[in-house]
Amino acid sequence: MTAQEVNAFLAEVYPQLNDAMSGYSVVDVVPGGCTVRLDATEAHLRPGGTVSGPSLFTLADIGGYACVLSHTGPEALSVTTNLNINFMRKALAGPIDGLCRILKFGRSLVVFDVEMRTCSDGLTVAHATGTYSIPPGQPSNA
Amino acid sequence: MTAQEVNAFLAEVYPQLNDAMSGYSVVDVVPGGCTVRLDATEAHLRPGGTVSGPSLFTLADIGGYACVLSHTGPEALSVTTNLNINFMRKALAGPIDGLCRILKFGRSLVVFDVEMRTCSDGLTVAHATGTYSIPPGQPSNA
Amino acid sequence: MTAQEVNAFLAEVYPQLNDAMSGYSVVDVVPGGCTVRLDATEAHLRPGGTVSGPSLFTLADIGGYACVLSHTGPEALSVTTNLNINFMRKALAGPIDGLCRILKFGRSLVVFDVEMRTCSDGLTVAHATGTYSIPPGQPSNA
Amino acid sequence: MTAQEVNAFLAEVYPQLNDAMSGYSVVDVVPGGCTVRLDATEAHLRPGGTVSGPSLFTLADIGGYACVLSHTGPEALSVTTNLNINFMRKALAGPIDGLCRILKFGRSLVVFDVEMRTCSDGLTVAHATGTYSIPPGQPSNA
Repeated sequence: MTAQEVNAFLAEVYPQLNDAMSGYSVVDVVPGGCTVRLDATEAHLRPGGTVSGPSLFTLADIGGYACVLSHTGPEALSVTTNLNINFMRKALAGPIDGLCRILKFGRSLVVFDVEMRTCSDGLTVAHATGTYSIPPGQPSNA
Repeated sequence: MTAQEVNAFLAEVYPQLNDAMSGYSVVDVVPGGCTVRLDATEAHLRPGGTVSGPSLFTLADIGGYACVLSHTGPEALSVTTNLNINFMRKALAGPIDGLCRILKFGRSLVVFDVEMRTCSDGLTVAHATGTYSIPPGQPSNA
Repeated sequence: MTAQEVNAFLAEVYPQLNDAMSGYSVVDVVPGGCTVRLDATEAHLRPGGTVSGPSLFTLADIGGYACVLSHTGPEALSVTTNLNINFMRKALAGPIDGLCRILKFGRSLVVFDVEMRTCSDGLTVAHATGTYSIPPGQPSNA
Repeated sequence: MTAQEVNAFLAEVYPQLNDAMSGYSVVDVVPGGCTVRLDATEAHLRPGGTVSGPSLFTLADIGGYACVLSHTGPEALSVTTNLNINFMRKALAGPIDGLCRILKFGRSLVVFDVEMRTCSDGLTVAHATGTYSIPPGQPSNA
């Protein structure tokens, strides 16, 4: 699936995503990974005026989900089993890119990491590693 | 600070929390920990009709923040540096309690864990461990 | 399997464990968990004279393995897929107990946590959360 | 510090490292990171004949430590506060490289990740993210 197809699919099966906390999209899909973006506004800030942890977690989680979707086809039922995130620098409102790499694409588990950088200056603000579980009987490329 | 005081403080300094994804509150504060609650509605669901990862991450993150606030006083500037979460069972809409324990309350780092259970049946749906960093010069009880 | 049976099994299938870094054993098995112990000596210390991170990681990993073994029977092939560990206090040489709880015992994944405490004063020195994967076709109680 | 200087320093302050589980060394130091190596032998194997989790954890931990040492000078007292590791593929005995990147070099916390690849075929067998804490009053380049 292309970035556009993943976005259309997410809008259909996961309307909550951009109903409540809008601003998330897939901007690029490449073999072995993808790039997701958060256009952080006032709604994504926490005390101190910086982008909140839940907003960046959501970006990382969508990144992993987009990796699975774009590399298996429209399959909405895979679920996150683990996600570890480190917050490294404060990020002001504005676009933040999540560069996602698939570290392992197994039969039942997909392991990925996501480096989150502010588009304005390219600084890494957070880094996450996670695992998606693909239920048995789903299409998979590995 | 009591649960009520923490809720009032959060409403003041972190309006985004319940603007976008409402339903979070502190229900109890005890020495060495606290309990936070998510009243999960349709807005918190992901594909498959179960409570989303970002919703549970937010619950865990608020739990750690409430631990810091309730044990140091109204200090809004502490930040999450790391959070690791495991998702174990699907949870339907309804109240979910996050039972938070402070594992370490150091001068600059607070380590906590949160066990998240559906109130209807008491099953553990997710578990998180995290670290908050308290900036130098803040009040602290350790 | 009892603690004694797990120790005998580990000695047989995992001789490296106590060849290189001796001092690890299972001291108790209960429904839903177990207790493992490290008798930390000079060999387990790192710079600064405190018990090393790898020694405590090993204790946590054995704790998860003992949870799987004691609740499924002698099955050596399950593997760790993820382990997250927080180090909270320095521990001097001496016995350290790892109190392990099974958070989820699924068909293919077992999630557990381990609280590591020095036996001398009961202080928590480290906390870990991990996942073991049980290959298909293995006996399992869930 | 160069790779050679870090190795000499480790041999002096951390003799336990290669006493018990030999085979660890720093093979390269570059700005913003370093490469560490484990020459995995029979002693590093777990049941199933593959390199054990504790052996790979140790490689990742040394990688973070070497990042701190090589970028601050001979300072033995920094400590790991958190390490999260994902195991992705089984690795047979033989050399495994840990490619370490410094994600953040703060005043008190250093965040790094380590990709571990078997030298024989370049496959990623494990990935870790961790944090070292540098005590106040230490030299630091950030």
